[in-house]
Amino acid sequence: MESLRINLEAEDIPTHWYNIVADMPNPPAPPLGPDGQPVAPERMLEIFPGNILEQEMSAERWIAIPEEVREIYRLWRPSPLCRARRLEELLGTPAKIYYKYEGVSPTGSHKANSSVPQAWYNRQAGIKRLTTETGAGQWGSSLAFAGQMFDMDIRIYMVNVSYQQKPFRRSMMQTWGAEVFASPTDLTQAGRDALAQNPNNPGSLGLAISEAVEEAAGRADTNYALGSVLNHVLLHQTVIGLEAKKQFAKVGDYPDMIFAPCGGGSNFGGVVFPFLADQAAASSPKKTLFVAVEPTSCPSLTKGHYAYDYGDSSGYTPLMLMYTLGHDFMPPGIHAGGLRYHGASSLVSQLYKEGLIEAVAVPQLATFEAGVMFAKAEGIIPAPESNHAIRACLDEALRCKETGEAKTLFFNLSGHGHFDMASYDRYFSGQLEDYAYPEAEIHSALERLPKVG
Amino acid sequence: MESLRINLEAEDIPTHWYNIVADMPNPPAPPLGPDGQPVAPERMLEIFPGNILEQEMSAERWIAIPEEVREIYRLWRPSPLCRARRLEELLGTPAKIYYKYEGVSPTGSHKANSSVPQAWYNRQAGIKRLTTETGAGQWGSSLAFAGQMFDMDIRIYMVNVSYQQKPFRRSMMQTWGAEVFASPTDLTQAGRDALAQNPNNPGSLGLAISEAVEEAAGRADTNYALGSVLNHVLLHQTVIGLEAKKQFAKVGDYPDMIFAPCGGGSNFGGVVFPFLADQAAASSPKKTLFVAVEPTSCPSLTKGHYAYDYGDSSGYTPLMLMYTLGHDFMPPGIHAGGLRYHGASSLVSQLYKEGLIEAVAVPQLATFEAGVMFAKAEGIIPAPESNHAIRACLDEALRCKETGEAKTLFFNLSGHGHFDMASYDRYFSGQLEDYAYPEAEIHSALERLPKVG
Repeated sequence: MESLRINLEAEDIPTHWYNIVADMPNPPAPPLGPDGQPVAPERMLEIFPGNILEQEMSAERWIAIPEEVREIYRLWRPSPLCRARRLEELLGTPAKIYYKYEGVSPTGSHKANSSVPQAWYNRQAGIKRLTTETGAGQWGSSLAFAGQMFDMDIRIYMVNVSYQQKPFRRSMMQTWGAEVFASPTDLTQAGRDALAQNPNNPGSLGLAISEAVEEAAGRADTNYALGSVLNHVLLHQTVIGLEAKKQFAKVGDYPDMIFAPCGGGSNFGGVVFPFLADQAAASSPKKTLFVAVEPTSCPSLTKGHYAYDYGDSSGYTPLMLMYTLGHDFMPPGIHAGGLRYHGASSLVSQLYKEGLIEAVAVPQLATFEAGVMFAKAEGIIPAPESNHAIRACLDEALRCKETGEAKTLFFNLSGHGHFDMASYDRYFSGQLEDYAYPEAEIHSALERLPKVG
Repeated sequence: MESLRINLEAEDIPTHWYNIVADMPNPPAPPLGPDGQPVAPERMLEIFPGNILEQEMSAERWIAIPEEVREIYRLWRPSPLCRARRLEELLGTPAKIYYKYEGVSPTGSHKANSSVPQAWYNRQAGIKRLTTETGAGQWGSSLAFAGQMFDMDIRIYMVNVSYQQKPFRRSMMQTWGAEVFASPTDLTQAGRDALAQNPNNPGSLGLAISEAVEEAAGRADTNYALGSVLNHVLLHQTVIGLEAKKQFAKVGDYPDMIFAPCGGGSNFGGVVFPFLADQAAASSPKKTLFVAVEPTSCPSLTKGHYAYDYGDSSGYTPLMLMYTLGHDFMPPGIHAGGLRYHGASSLVSQLYKEGLIEAVAVPQLATFEAGVMFAKAEGIIPAPESNHAIRACLDEALRCKETGEAKTLFFNLSGHGHFDMASYDRYFSGQLEDYAYPEAEIHSALERLPKVG
């Protein structure tokens, strides 16, 4: 009986994360201060422990995963690689469709792959308290879970609109013992400023980051943890791609195209980088295409500027070279909260700039349509973020139907949609709409970018 | 590296369900009509297909699982057996704790194990439309999913109070294309009668069953599907215990005690019956204890009468010999909606009556306390129904701590709690309470039981 799920054993959980920096054609651009000079490590040490900063700046190809982290990974990893046979039949495509299912984690998404090591490294550095932000709630839940695993206090600034829309994500974080606040709050200067401008501020990921960073910077006992964008976060997520490679080897297949949603970039980097490594080996005959899928409403890669910009809305973070829509861009209230971020990770941005990966933008309604089709065929109701990858993969599978090509397509199903059913409700009742990114914004964003040096 | 999850391969999905009837010391008591005579099959054929009725009355030990059903099972089965190492450490118990995790199904609970074959058998019999009831929403989601798999129309009567409290269970059913109504409705006589008495009727499982049965009986193109209680439902659920036995054999262990929540009994029967089979073999040295765990607020086994009673509130169903609190008993609004049923399956009741299994009742607050402890240790947030088994298992693990016994304890984690976070919220904010079953009810229930013959 053919298995639709390709499982691995506990000993197949990777022992090392893969660092793409070792194989990039050019070294990554360093983070800068407003003076145009590389940021001094001391400034970063206000909010990150030294062991994490070391990872952030490392060019080593393989970085060992601490045994204590692998112990926690064992609660849900290795995650399954699945063959979507019923979906293939529904589409009538000759393409083979595989997905890696990260929704099996306790928090229902891939985010726990990085929250666990981040909590552990901070604990090793003697830190027992962390702040963070969360949009869709996937990262916040994951850090709450990780904090519980290592007996740490976690404070979460949750984007106000998500806090109201997704009360059960909040309950989940509280079940694991975390404190959760609707951002903007009156606990920080960034929050108070935002509330002064608009007492009903819906919040944004950039603003919640400002609040979490401000608090961490101001307290010696507290560090900050970020759920995407930074090199070390993408590094941790490579367990996804590393496992997937073993799983493909087990069935003697290899993807021709890989699709992943791309907001900050941790999902995309996590699944794609280990496959990109194969291509980096000059002798490799592999010609896989890597497709970052973003929302048309927040299209940082496909419509943004490649420039130095802040990671948060208030300009507390260092400047990073990335594709950005401007750090003060307020994305429309789409239901893939995890993709409502103004920029893309420096690593992903540079790979895109250098032509090693591709990007497409897809509209909201089409992503939900794809998600419902997937749920009907495969049973799993996907997170709205994941629906972006599914949409792009379905489009390719339908192209294969026209051309008759039996391509191997692979996407990362980064999480389930159990906490997103209100969004599905709105989709079914016709209340969701598509947002195009206004062309005028493209020009004004350029003007609003910070001057460097 | 020791695996915390004991996985099986696709070919390990059972090829046959196990029928406990073949190994019971006495044959099960037949369903009766109000005249005291066994119910004529023609009456049952109004709402069930012949192939299902055959299973319902079968005494064959092994019943083959159709290949098309195993095909769908493959989407999530075999489910993992997990060792709760972190929980053992948290409790400081010498006991070993294992759980079978059925929350990996698309619908998040064990209910899909029976919804899939029920849909398939009806489809084979030429039926394309099914009605059912749902309380917590787990069964309704599961039948919606199964209907989608075989292209059937599904109409679900959802207990009104659950419909209001759990809108996202409803969205989930709609994602798979089902129609969902808050019961009581004005679509049936049973519903209209209930609304006439009380326009704000909160509904009950018994009443929703009446509505679903009434509609199915009145339409030739429509059958009815039940999510628990009946022999064939418990039969389908034995895939849980059958897989678990293989998994225990893989690690060379065997449970000393097995705990499962018990409402209608499908969860309990599914995990316990295959182990009970070992005990039935006279030569077996096994001395496993089987513990059905029910809420103190709805304690059919521990406080009910062993008598013939209706399965629904309006008396549309045949009379079944079972432990019952009276078919018109309206259980208090506890948050384990799946356990708010006035009776227990005839099979489970008879095994209890004959001393082959045990039962305990646990209060609501203690179950949530256990669930939160489990979530903090193991990461998974359990369904409130599952918390009942966890509570009883924790109590035993703590007894082992006192006595120093290294017992092997096993419980069925029948589902996750992603759609029950509102209940956890109420628990955290101190709004949940315990309900004792009033002693006076015990006597009045006896008087209210239907007269047979």
